[in-house]
Amino acid sequence: MSTQQNMGKLRIIPLGGLEQIGMNITAFEYEDSIIVIDCGLAFPEDDMLGIDLVIPDISYLKENEEKVKGFFITHGHEDHIGAIPYVMKELNVPIYATKLTNALIENKLKEHNLLGQVKRKVVKYGQHINLGCFRVEFIKTNHSIQDAAALAIYSPAGVVIHTGDFKVDYTPVYGDAIDLQRFGELGKKGVLALMCDSTNAERPGFTQSERTVGKTIDSLFAEHTNSRIIIATFASNVDRVQQIINSAHKYDRKVIVEGRSMVNVISTASELGYLDIPDNTLIDIEMIKNYPDEKTVLITTGSQGESMAALSRMANGTHRKVSIKPNDTIIFSSHPIPGNEKAVSNVINELEMKGANVVFQDVHVSGHACQEEIKLLYSLVQPRYAIPIHGEYKHRMAQAKIAASLGIDKENIFILASGDVMELDQESARIAGRVHTGAIMVDGLGVGDVGNIVLRDRQHLAEDGIIIVVLTLESGSGQVLAGPDIVSRGFVYVRGAEDLMESARAVLNDTMDKMVDQNVTDWTRIKSEIKDALGDFVWKETQRRPMIMPIIMEV
Amino acid sequence: MSTQQNMGKLRIIPLGGLEQIGMNITAFEYEDSIIVIDCGLAFPEDDMLGIDLVIPDISYLKENEEKVKGFFITHGHEDHIGAIPYVMKELNVPIYATKLTNALIENKLKEHNLLGQVKRKVVKYGQHINLGCFRVEFIKTNHSIQDAAALAIYSPAGVVIHTGDFKVDYTPVYGDAIDLQRFGELGKKGVLALMCDSTNAERPGFTQSERTVGKTIDSLFAEHTNSRIIIATFASNVDRVQQIINSAHKYDRKVIVEGRSMVNVISTASELGYLDIPDNTLIDIEMIKNYPDEKTVLITTGSQGESMAALSRMANGTHRKVSIKPNDTIIFSSHPIPGNEKAVSNVINELEMKGANVVFQDVHVSGHACQEEIKLLYSLVQPRYAIPIHGEYKHRMAQAKIAASLGIDKENIFILASGDVMELDQESARIAGRVHTGAIMVDGLGVGDVGNIVLRDRQHLAEDGIIIVVLTLESGSGQVLAGPDIVSRGFVYVRGAEDLMESARAVLNDTMDKMVDQNVTDWTRIKSEIKDALGDFVWKETQRRPMIMPIIMEV
Repeated sequence: MSTQQNMGKLRIIPLGGLEQIGMNITAFEYEDSIIVIDCGLAFPEDDMLGIDLVIPDISYLKENEEKVKGFFITHGHEDHIGAIPYVMKELNVPIYATKLTNALIENKLKEHNLLGQVKRKVVKYGQHINLGCFRVEFIKTNHSIQDAAALAIYSPAGVVIHTGDFKVDYTPVYGDAIDLQRFGELGKKGVLALMCDSTNAERPGFTQSERTVGKTIDSLFAEHTNSRIIIATFASNVDRVQQIINSAHKYDRKVIVEGRSMVNVISTASELGYLDIPDNTLIDIEMIKNYPDEKTVLITTGSQGESMAALSRMANGTHRKVSIKPNDTIIFSSHPIPGNEKAVSNVINELEMKGANVVFQDVHVSGHACQEEIKLLYSLVQPRYAIPIHGEYKHRMAQAKIAASLGIDKENIFILASGDVMELDQESARIAGRVHTGAIMVDGLGVGDVGNIVLRDRQHLAEDGIIIVVLTLESGSGQVLAGPDIVSRGFVYVRGAEDLMESARAVLNDTMDKMVDQNVTDWTRIKSEIKDALGDFVWKETQRRPMIMPIIMEV
Repeated sequence: MSTQQNMGKLRIIPLGGLEQIGMNITAFEYEDSIIVIDCGLAFPEDDMLGIDLVIPDISYLKENEEKVKGFFITHGHEDHIGAIPYVMKELNVPIYATKLTNALIENKLKEHNLLGQVKRKVVKYGQHINLGCFRVEFIKTNHSIQDAAALAIYSPAGVVIHTGDFKVDYTPVYGDAIDLQRFGELGKKGVLALMCDSTNAERPGFTQSERTVGKTIDSLFAEHTNSRIIIATFASNVDRVQQIINSAHKYDRKVIVEGRSMVNVISTASELGYLDIPDNTLIDIEMIKNYPDEKTVLITTGSQGESMAALSRMANGTHRKVSIKPNDTIIFSSHPIPGNEKAVSNVINELEMKGANVVFQDVHVSGHACQEEIKLLYSLVQPRYAIPIHGEYKHRMAQAKIAASLGIDKENIFILASGDVMELDQESARIAGRVHTGAIMVDGLGVGDVGNIVLRDRQHLAEDGIIIVVLTLESGSGQVLAGPDIVSRGFVYVRGAEDLMESARAVLNDTMDKMVDQNVTDWTRIKSEIKDALGDFVWKETQRRPMIMPIIMEV
């Protein structure tokens, strides 16, 4: 699309290539300026076999490289910052974020040896950044990580408010409550569009304050004074960790932190002053044996049942330093993220089988706004256009219904798909076109090398295995000198393997005899005959369709 | 274990080989008699790649074949009847069940061409069956399928009550409420042990009556008079289907039934009189085009997001007869079974993206007893021993806590693992030993042919793919005549594939040169050197570990 069509209009373009999983990255374009909000990664879906993570395809930004002025990051969760190291290898523009968010971005850049090469600016709430045609203001919000911000994006076409992930917490553990006054003030002046977090839009009511979890944790400490306590939670929820440390201190327990991401976040947060750890509270995991169980608490990763996380390894007995004992009290201060329910259940079962007492209900509150908070935000901002963001389609749809119930015209509510180009100004708004977006799969060191063919092959291999047929032909004559030999992996036999393989060899010999009789020497033809003959035979005998792979050598 | 040790004691032996997934089958043994309660299958766990279903290993029953008198089935769900066709190929003993349960078993036997070969007896509630040392009474219960029964198992050592899956429904849609009087009467006389359903033992309160769902469905019909209605639910929940039909009739809509299992269950249930379908209500799916949308309702399978079920095919646009239209009202009368949450969400998203209005909250009640019902049953039965059954370990543990809270001595509460032999009589109870059990994986036509090696290979293939190295050696000299050739599937390259493969070939040539220099002709050694050299190279270049498979031919 050319810039011509775009004169005087603001364009909003979501670039996260997947609809169903969270990879937050949105371009704002006005004439010769583009700014980008967030730069997240996604974790692979179940059918992305062997994939480590997924990042957005930013071809659109690369094609318009000279326009791109900078990235603004709302908060430090993976689905908002995780793709930064990958994207910054392609685009070198400054990144604007609040202090903790910036520190977490720095940790990522360090891991990728990019720290010196990417410009970063730490921004305070209330601060405005001018970049090209845009001005961006950071507004205080609350979320399950500190230093979360909403952004007011000022453009010549009007102001757009992007909430990032947020909730309304009137009594946050650290820092201030969400700056509702500023939302009201901006709303009064006139807001073109509100892009509001939809994650909890299906849930009625209000999300409770993070402090209520502190009270629950405190009462669990009061109740379980005779056992070791192990608490699993999200590494990035520094306020949660703070409240656990407070209770530990109150009940005179030493705190051990376990799990790499937990150790990293806690050290970053306490260096920056976001976490207040009383002296002599934290001890190294090696020292745990010097204290009685009832004087220790472990804070650990693994609240989502992740197979390699510390708690899962404790549960299945492969953790090198902590063995679960009968009588341990194990608290899940978390709720399973959709898709992780079964994994979490399995870990709970394993822990209980080892005799531990597991507490997993009501020791968590969400970091996202429920229906009443969403209504509150709409009522303060009163935007002309509603653009529900974050969450699956059904969540954004639920917010669309809320917006409509508050009197926003249905035609002014937009659920954008990745790549949709929304053009808007004070007069009108519409989806004016599409740009290319996509999901790039990262597998080991490879970025984008796994395509759909590789994934399809992996699925085929996973489902039914592979049968390899090798044969050596005489150059020129095409006579079979050796083979056909058959080797299989991941394939199952109905009867004894030998039986089936012997019959399969007979089938292949027949096929090759036919080829010789017919003077067929074309390898492609031979391979395809082998595939067909063996495939039919195997299906008849086993009702499975393994991948069949003929390999021909010539001597 | 010999029969000697067992004199005068009742033995209870769970034979479902998996702890975490439901495969219900329990042996009761007294001296020379064994009876078996239920005979279920399980659906594969996520890591059982390519497996269709899982059945129990019944070696213990086969070793004691002369003792086995018969099977008693509590109700017709897959996790209670699904393994019958497989088990009956190995053991030929009669099966006792209520009418609908028996009919569903017959359907299964027919599919496996076993109908004529397996003896079956239809049993009424209140009826007693004498078999060897045992007498078994069928007691009316409620569940999410009709004709569910609890069993009172009379043995010389005392009476054991096995609830099967149950809930307390004072106002069932069809037939009577659970026979609480009989449980009280038996309790008064003295019950040795209670084996009670734990599925909902973590949930406080009472499970609501099935009739409440009927009211909700009725109000949804009243609300959505201008659109087609599509309702997804469990095929086996005949009462649910009945209530949908009742509302359809009331609101003058034709009913279309879609999905193979739905069609099968509905025809069986209506033939037997468990389902009352008013004349001219049911129409064939081909006739749907003759009626306006607002005069039709489709009842369909797919409420769990199963990829091949009718609703999923409608959602992704591959159903041959039904296309989702904007304005369709789609009701999930179900709750996702743990592990299916994500799949269900994906289907909902797809439906909403097509413009449908999806209702998925509060149109379902569970078929299992919550905490207050469990307490009620314990209070009526007042057993000496509590043996929580059904559900994951954590659910059975939750019931153990309920039993303890009602005053049952902790030492008299047993959570049995598969293969545990519990010996009990009026004097004492203990876990006296173990027998072999296991999970047999069924893959296509193969029963038990997939073992752990095949599964491990499939996981390896799924994760990183395979690299095949073929070479032809000269017989005797061991000279390389052709190759090494490299072929891969499901493997990803960091750089251009050709680059990497060329370097890999160089690595292999070096390896083969070394083999020739050292006069190595042992194929095992050559293969292992190839694996090591190529494995190291690929790891260094890509940080992946594909399966490496050298194949040597000789000419």
